Amino acid sequence: MTTRTKPSIPDLYRDARAGNRLAVGRLLTRVERGGADADTVSELAHADAGSAHIVGITGAPGAGKSTLVGELVSHLVAAGRRPAVLAVDPSSPLTGGAILGDRIRMEGSQDAVSAPSVTADGDAESVRHKPFIRSMATRGHSGGLALAVPLAVRLFDALGFDPVIIETVGVGQVEVDVVGAADTAVVVATPGMGDAVQANKAGLLEVADVFVVNKADRPGATDVRRDLELMLDLSKVTGQEAEIGYRPPIVMASALEGTGATDVLDAVADHLSFLESSGRRVDRRRHRVRTEIEARLAQALQRRVSNLLASSTGQALLKQVEAGDESPTSVTRRLLDELLSTAPSTPQP
Amino acid sequence: MTTRTKPSIPDLYRDARAGNRLAVGRLLTRVERGGADADTVSELAHADAGSAHIVGITGAPGAGKSTLVGELVSHLVAAGRRPAVLAVDPSSPLTGGAILGDRIRMEGSQDAVSAPSVTADGDAESVRHKPFIRSMATRGHSGGLALAVPLAVRLFDALGFDPVIIETVGVGQVEVDVVGAADTAVVVATPGMGDAVQANKAGLLEVADVFVVNKADRPGATDVRRDLELMLDLSKVTGQEAEIGYRPPIVMASALEGTGATDVLDAVADHLSFLESSGRRVDRRRHRVRTEIEARLAQALQRRVSNLLASSTGQALLKQVEAGDESPTSVTRRLLDELLSTAPSTPQP
Repeated sequence: MTTRTKPSIPDLYRDARAGNRLAVGRLLTRVERGGADADTVSELAHADAGSAHIVGITGAPGAGKSTLVGELVSHLVAAGRRPAVLAVDPSSPLTGGAILGDRIRMEGSQDAVSAPSVTADGDAESVRHKPFIRSMATRGHSGGLALAVPLAVRLFDALGFDPVIIETVGVGQVEVDVVGAADTAVVVATPGMGDAVQANKAGLLEVADVFVVNKADRPGATDVRRDLELMLDLSKVTGQEAEIGYRPPIVMASALEGTGATDVLDAVADHLSFLESSGRRVDRRRHRVRTEIEARLAQALQRRVSNLLASSTGQALLKQVEAGDESPTSVTRRLLDELLSTAPSTPQP
Repeated sequence: MTTRTKPSIPDLYRDARAGNRLAVGRLLTRVERGGADADTVSELAHADAGSAHIVGITGAPGAGKSTLVGELVSHLVAAGRRPAVLAVDPSSPLTGGAILGDRIRMEGSQDAVSAPSVTADGDAESVRHKPFIRSMATRGHSGGLALAVPLAVRLFDALGFDPVIIETVGVGQVEVDVVGAADTAVVVATPGMGDAVQANKAGLLEVADVFVVNKADRPGATDVRRDLELMLDLSKVTGQEAEIGYRPPIVMASALEGTGATDVLDAVADHLSFLESSGRRVDRRRHRVRTEIEARLAQALQRRVSNLLASSTGQALLKQVEAGDESPTSVTRRLLDELLSTAPSTPQP
């Protein structure tokens, strides 16, 4: 009786699989909220997922990622693909939220891409090639981000979207983890930000499969390219290269001149071919599974820690530290023992 | 016999208390490395710490924080204070490291501040008013950051530095936590970054005790001020204001015009007075203790999770997820039970 106003998650999932965009959006909302509903979505999607090419795109704020992603989406749709974009808001109180603003502009251009305008509950055929773009805001929930992103990706994958593009502003470890867990990690650099790129080459090189020098029409673009080439030459990646037969390409792109988008897509496709021919795609998937389970465990443990600290035992110990009677080190040791000697919350027969 | 080449931590601590800067530096290195040595430093410092005013300063990259902090330090030294600055590198592979570059310039100007040039092992009297500035790089160790920062702050506090200034580029949750755990949180905004500030007002308002509009000589500075005032008017902080009698002031500052530094210091001192007269300084300390212990517990648990996933049990479960036989949700539940049924590693008699 109530299914009319509040459909069950299996119903939503079935509708989403049939092409209902409103159902997709509702499932994504459940995923963002986390908890038992998100787990149900995860179980359903797990059975159908596993084939999409997962592409992570990151870069400093202002690197022009959103414009680039918009172009990639246009080209993918024109080529008969059905991409999904998950734009991850890095939950920063100072620079976060910018993605959301960009996204609104991009959602506008999205309509130009997919000619047939459809209603949310519209005809499945007409939406077959319509891309799905979703911003995920996770302010104050870095743990929530680490859980919601892989689940949203799995959902898109299970619903037949391919590639699934994760766009993030790579300024935190969580975001780098997210992009590093993609099949293909694209790192976007721009002229004028060379110092930062240089200073952080080690972190960059470890996650990048494809570099893009964006805004290549600007002065200094060839310098950025040369710096990146040098970084690749000098890094430990070079040693691996000879062994694995892959060196991250550097693609020049300019939204102003309308160049680079197809080159980026070619480089991304080449990297997928390399992953498959070398058997390395399995490694990426394994890494992804491991990362997700670690995040889930961390969240579950965090909840137990919070409960313990709120308990009378925890409060008493915190007070002893405040009073200077105990040190944080010794109290941590006691709390840890307390935590690990607890019986499992869901005893198994 | 070996103490000559490798002094013990209690020796280093005693020397540091006597004003030996080299010893301070060595202790900070132990703190950064973590582990048992860091715990020893923590225990020693815990006994002597508790009086310094802890000031967190954050803002987007390019907000001119380093220059501002340099000016604050100059004024504090001139007023007979002995400040310490802990510059936290946000460990970003894309923008991190910028602080270190800034810091090199600032370390240069530091000599101009404190006239008497002293050797590392130099005379304690001459260094009494010399500020101590330390960059802490924590790439790839967000957990390490959460542990090392409070410990370094406690060490500075125990060694008699006051105020202890934590400078960070506030682009991640960890960094916001760090600044939010200070007695006084200073948020630096600049003209031309108004959109970002606007978009994230909720996150900002929650942590800020003092706002600084930096580069106030630039066009748009009054707009930023007006935006911040509006944000304060509209936010839930306003409701609290009437109750607690404190509204975060907005200070205009310009390094170019040499204005604002003393105003910032006045605002920071006023906030400390408010904390003390209202009894809220205890709350800040309590929050800090709790945050640190949570971070320590999280790190200890993370280690156990890694060990479990590397074990044969963990590996077998991960393989089942990869094969599609188990879902991440169900495997997480099993691993959690496995983890929590383990006996404490250090059984207590």
